[in-house]
Formats: sequence, C-alpha cells, structure tokens
Amino acid sequence: MAQLSTQPYKGTRDFFPEDMRFREAMFSVMHRVVRSYGFDQIDAPIVEPVDLYLAKTSEEIVGQQIYSFKDRGDRLVAIRPEMTPTVARMVAQRFQQTPKPIRWYSIPNVWRYEQPGKGRLREHWQLNCDIFGAASEQLADLELLQLAVDLLRGYGASDAHFKIYLSHRAILNGVLGDELQLPQDKWANVARMMDKRAKVKPEAYAAMLEAEGVSAGQRANLDLFLNDKIDYLKARPQLGGASYIVELMQALENLGLGNYIEYDPAVVRGFDYYTGMVFEVFDTHPENRRSLFGGGRYNNLVGAFGKETLNAVGFGMGDVTLEDFLRTHRLLNDQPRQVELYIALLDEKLAAHALKLASQLRQRGKTCEVSLGAAKLGKQIQEAEKKQIARVIILGEDEVASSVYSVKTLATGEQQKLTLEQI
Amino acid sequence: MAQLSTQPYKGTRDFFPEDMRFREAMFSVMHRVVRSYGFDQIDAPIVEPVDLYLAKTSEEIVGQQIYSFKDRGDRLVAIRPEMTPTVARMVAQRFQQTPKPIRWYSIPNVWRYEQPGKGRLREHWQLNCDIFGAASEQLADLELLQLAVDLLRGYGASDAHFKIYLSHRAILNGVLGDELQLPQDKWANVARMMDKRAKVKPEAYAAMLEAEGVSAGQRANLDLFLNDKIDYLKARPQLGGASYIVELMQALENLGLGNYIEYDPAVVRGFDYYTGMVFEVFDTHPENRRSLFGGGRYNNLVGAFGKETLNAVGFGMGDVTLEDFLRTHRLLNDQPRQVELYIALLDEKLAAHALKLASQLRQRGKTCEVSLGAAKLGKQIQEAEKKQIARVIILGEDEVASSVYSVKTLATGEQQKLTLEQI
Repeated sequence: MAQLSTQPYKGTRDFFPEDMRFREAMFSVMHRVVRSYGFDQIDAPIVEPVDLYLAKTSEEIVGQQIYSFKDRGDRLVAIRPEMTPTVARMVAQRFQQTPKPIRWYSIPNVWRYEQPGKGRLREHWQLNCDIFGAASEQLADLELLQLAVDLLRGYGASDAHFKIYLSHRAILNGVLGDELQLPQDKWANVARMMDKRAKVKPEAYAAMLEAEGVSAGQRANLDLFLNDKIDYLKARPQLGGASYIVELMQALENLGLGNYIEYDPAVVRGFDYYTGMVFEVFDTHPENRRSLFGGGRYNNLVGAFGKETLNAVGFGMGDVTLEDFLRTHRLLNDQPRQVELYIALLDEKLAAHALKLASQLRQRGKTCEVSLGAAKLGKQIQEAEKKQIARVIILGEDEVASSVYSVKTLATGEQQKLTLEQI
Repeated sequence: MAQLSTQPYKGTRDFFPEDMRFREAMFSVMHRVVRSYGFDQIDAPIVEPVDLYLAKTSEEIVGQQIYSFKDRGDRLVAIRPEMTPTVARMVAQRFQQTPKPIRWYSIPNVWRYEQPGKGRLREHWQLNCDIFGAASEQLADLELLQLAVDLLRGYGASDAHFKIYLSHRAILNGVLGDELQLPQDKWANVARMMDKRAKVKPEAYAAMLEAEGVSAGQRANLDLFLNDKIDYLKARPQLGGASYIVELMQALENLGLGNYIEYDPAVVRGFDYYTGMVFEVFDTHPENRRSLFGGGRYNNLVGAFGKETLNAVGFGMGDVTLEDFLRTHRLLNDQPRQVELYIALLDEKLAAHALKLASQLRQRGKTCEVSLGAAKLGKQIQEAEKKQIARVIILGEDEVASSVYSVKTLATGEQQKLTLEQI
C-alpha cells in the first residue's frame, strides 16, 4: 500500500500541544466573559439533515460550500457549515418550557468547502452567542453589542484595536425602495456595487450604477446616504430602522461604548436571515484591517419549525480571524506548558517507587511526569528541559531508602533535599 | 416547504444547558487527572482521508460503520470513527523533534453508523490517552493502567465500582497455536466461541468447538487456560506474553492497585492493531455489568507513515458508557447553574443603568443576568427562580439615584440594601 500522508485534510489544522494551549487560552476568555452574562453553553451533533440548511442558510453556502452526503439510510445530511440553524432548531424544541430570555452559547467546529487562504479554512471553530425571546428587542441588541465589546476587552483589546460598525437591514431597503424608488430586483446588485465604491474609480462606480438603471440623481442620493451617515438617518425618521439606530447609538454612548461603535450604512451581512440590527467588528490594525466577526437580529428563523416567531439576536466569531487579531496586536501569545515536576530514574528497578511517588504528588495537587525508563541522568534532565518542566526529582536508592528526595531546579541548577511534603 | 424537525439526527444528541453542565463536569475530571500525569492535549480535524482508516481500523468499522463520502475535489474522506489513527498520523508528523515519551490526550467526537441502543450512539465523545516512545514499554503500560484507575477514582469510584481485566495479545495466539496446535485460520472463530462460553450451555459450547475441529483434549486444555487464569501462565513461562503479564500483575500489586486489576484470558479487544498488553474496564454494578472502556499496546501503527516503529500504548473512554457508570453509582449527578445575580427592572427607562451595573458587577468577578425588559416584579422574580439564580437586584428609580440597591435572596426572602461593593 502507498505510504500514508502525515498531513491533515486540505484546509484544516492539526492542533499540536502548543496550538491547543493557545486555543484553550483563547476559548477560556470566551467561556469566562460569556458566562459572566448568564449565557448557558450548549452543543449539538456536527451532522444535520441538509434540509435544515436549505431552509436557513444562504444559497451560496448550501450550493457551493456545504459538505453534504447520503448516509447509509439514504438520508441527505451535511456537516454543519454554521451553528445558527442548529441553535434555532434546539430553541424550537425547548422554547416553551425555557424561561426567557434564553441566552445560549457554543464553540462548535464548522465546515465549508472553500479555497483555503489567510483567515479562511475549511474547518474552523466559532463562538456563537444568541439571545432569544427578550421582552425588549432593543435591550437584547444592546446587551449583545456590550458582550461583543467585552469579549475583545477580555483579551485586553481597547477601542484602539477594533471598531464595531452597525446598521439595520430595513435602512438599505428603505433607501433603495422608498427614497430611490428602485425596483426590488435591483437591490441586491446595487448593494454589491455600493460595497465596491471605495475600491474602484468614481467614474467606474458611476458607470456600474448607470448600467443597473440608477440615474445621476438617484446616485447623488445614494452618495448622501453613504457619506452623511447618522445625519442622513436623523433627517429621515420615517425611514424604517432609522430612528431605531439613532436611539441605539445614543444608548451605546450612554453605556460608555461610544468609542467602540459607529453607524455604517455599508454594513449588510451576507446572510439572508437577518431582519433588524446588523453589525461587523473590524480590526483597526493597518495590516489586518478586515472583519473579525459579525451578527445581528434574525426574528424569523425559529418560525421554520412551526412555532410562533421568537425574536433572536446573535453573533458568530471565528477562531482563525480572532487568532490573527490577537497575535497581530500581541494581545495573546504562545502559552507555556504547565508541568511542575519530572521524576528522573537512576535505575529501572526503582520504577514502582517512582510511580508511587508521582501518585502521592498528584494527590497533593502537583503535576508530575515520570521518566518511563532509566537513561543517563544528563539525558533525562535534557528531556525534562525540552519538556519545559521546572524541577527534576532525582530518584536513586538513597532517596528510596530515606524518603528524602534530591530536587533540582533547572533554571538555577540549585539542588535541594526535600521530603514529599516539602516538594 | 414541509415543517422542519426539531429533533437531532438519528442516534445523536443535542446538548442542552443541563446536559452540557454534566458533560463539562465529566470532562473537567478528565482534564485534571490526565494533565496531572503530564499529558498534553491535542485535537485534529473531524474529517480524514478514508485511506487512514482503511490502513488502520478494523474491517467491520470501515466496511459497515464509517461515515464516508467524496468531497467536491473527488477525495474519498470520512468522519472519524475513532481517534487513534489520527493520533498516530500526528505523532508520525512530529515524532522526531518531540521529546519522548510523548503523552497526548484528546476528547474528540467520533462517528459510527450503528443501530442506536443503550450505550451505543452514532456520535459520541471519547477521551483518548496515548503514550509513545517510552524507553520501557512495561513502565508505560504500568503508567497507563495507573492512569485508567486514577481517572475513575477521580470521580470517587473505588474497587467496589469497577475492575480492570487485562491480558496480552500473544497469550491467546500462543495457546491456540503452540499449545492446542490449531491452524491459524481457526483462531478468530475459536476466540469468538470462547467469548460465548459463559452464555451458552456446556454441551452447546462443546458442539460449537467440535464443529470447528477442536478435539475434546484440546477443549480440556482450553478450559484449563480459561479457568486457571494466572496459574496457567505461571506454569508456562515459555508462552509469549505469559511472563510479561505475571510480572505486570506483580508490579500493579506493588503499586497498591492489586484490588483493581485482574488477569482475564478472555480479554481480546476487537481491533486488529493491538500487539501486546490489552485491557477492558468493567462496571461491577449488577445492572450495568459491561465494558466501560479499554485499550492496549499497539506498536505498529505509526510505522504505516513510513517512519520507524514507535512503541505506543493507549485507551479510549466513551462519554455515553461513562455517564451510565457515573449515574448508576451516583458518583456524578446533575450540575446546578452557576449564575449569581439577576437584575430586575422596574422601568425600562432604567435599562442603561442596569446594563452598566451589570458590567461593574462582572468586572468584580460576579455572574449577572439582566432582565431584558420590565415586566411585573413578581414575574421577573419568578423568571430568576426558574433560572436558578440565588439573588435578585431590584432596580428602581431610588436605587439609581442613591446607588444603594435592594437585593433579595430568593431562598429566604430576605431583602437587603447594599452598595455595589457590598453585593
């Protein structure tokens, strides 16, 4: 048989111990901050029926990026490309007996068939936080944004490191429909062109819009919308979502979060399911200026399970872009190993004593590795150094006889005679 | 469109908050005990090329139980049915630069297409612990068995709750080949019949063996092997694995683990890859008397990646059977929610103050839920009770003006006026 590759599947990662320590340090901040808000952790199978995603995920993902297949019972299933449809399914299963608001979070791995690149892999982990059934949607939106800020602050980030841009799904629709009077079938294309506005020459931008049937007058109104930002909304309280965003910005200011958050009319979010406030968190670093994560309000998703509509707001934050952010700003670095003691064996006959001593040390809360075989002492000490262990217990016949152990601190070379209790 | 089901895929589980708390409590013991031995955590993608399993997993699993499919790049891949081939792949990738012994653990989810039943699901989680490249194989085997005992003791289990039965792959081969002189193509069938010995009538057992060409004399020898246990080995030091097991049992006795471990000639383990010591951990409870987990030595697995042979020993412990064990013996029960405070809102206008107060409490290390909307106070207190929160801060205009808060302890009904620092 051909030799097997030692590499992981394309676009995925193996997590070796140092990778795992970094990931765990990253996740532990998530657990701590999110739990401090009263969010409960959930989890679910990594495989779901494809129907769940056909109903509730964008066509691009289901058509081109989903990992789907038929199981041995001829069911069409998929490896989850995102967690939100699963969370909505679980809420629908339990929402009547669960006290509201429901605050749930999870850190699942999700799969998309993509061409791997910077910040884009086929498997990544994603913190998902969602609030369901809040009496006040505005309060839930506020809390979720507060949480998004606190999460990054949990890593030591400040308003110098990131900015949250928010908008409302109704605003763009109102501008394109009510203000510009564009037919609805043009909206998606025009929104895509707006997205390109900063990246192409003004003439090219004008030509694109003209080709889509947008007149010079309509374009001027669109420019006003994009340039005047919050002032545009304030002047048009009748515009759907406008006064909501004006109020939300004021409330965020009152909460002391004004420096973190801006209204940005260009924020749309790719997914089809958002119904209200939407936001994107951007890295402000000149070399990493891109979206870190985002989310918004999606009030219609749970309804797909035949239950009444339940209001919902949430976000998903990927580990790959977060790691780039944390490393770019040096907010989180590699994490050292945390093993305290190494028991070096001068003679294999003493092995039983070493394993017993290790057991006693562990009962006292110590972390302890035993050398599984007696090599030369120098070699064993080298192994302990490579394993980043601070202290070595040198176990010879004298130590076994007296129960007083030679303990060497590797950083200083200092050697002490200690009893079990003193180690 | 047809209404979507709220149920998870057949044979899998949703983890609601109470399930997740139990799972986390269960896993936290694993992390603590395994790390105290100096094991490093790893992880890997849940999808691997099918080739990896064709080379290194039993035919039954690959042929009948694996979740495999072609990806969009026409690669034949599978959702992992077990973790060991992946761990071997990762060791092969790194083993030259990694100080030995390598102690790695992981708690992956794994998938098998099975008919769901008690203790048998399509997705389950599994603690995997492996030791690679130990200078002394016997010391590594000893440490792994010590760890298996300590893991269950970590939940409060004792020798009254479980027993580890161990054997050696060479022993059975030696008995069937050298002692009974049976041709090798009969070994697997005879081993299966031995497994049925306790479950069928003696005559039926004799008839089965006879049909397989086992004479009455050979059967008597086989009975001796199964009945005499360790004495059979002691009488035949030339039998492969025999003296090793006799020594190992003595070393375990010296380690104070004698009560936990027995030699059992019937332990074989299904997998094809074991090469030395094998073991199964059994629940001793009369209603749950079955295998909890098992493992053994597999020295040839890493070699499939073209590297030199690396000695390896490990086990995999599934969460479903472990949960049954822990609940049967009442060693681990449902875990309560851990949210300390609930802020009830008397008026929605006070929301900003509530969110700010919550933020200050969280900065002081408290866990705090805010009522996202002002309902009647009684209803909010009910919600807090349902959410198992011990104390409620009642936020009205007086509280906002004075920064002195009414705090109600739900269990006693006691109400106090406290400042932020006192809460």
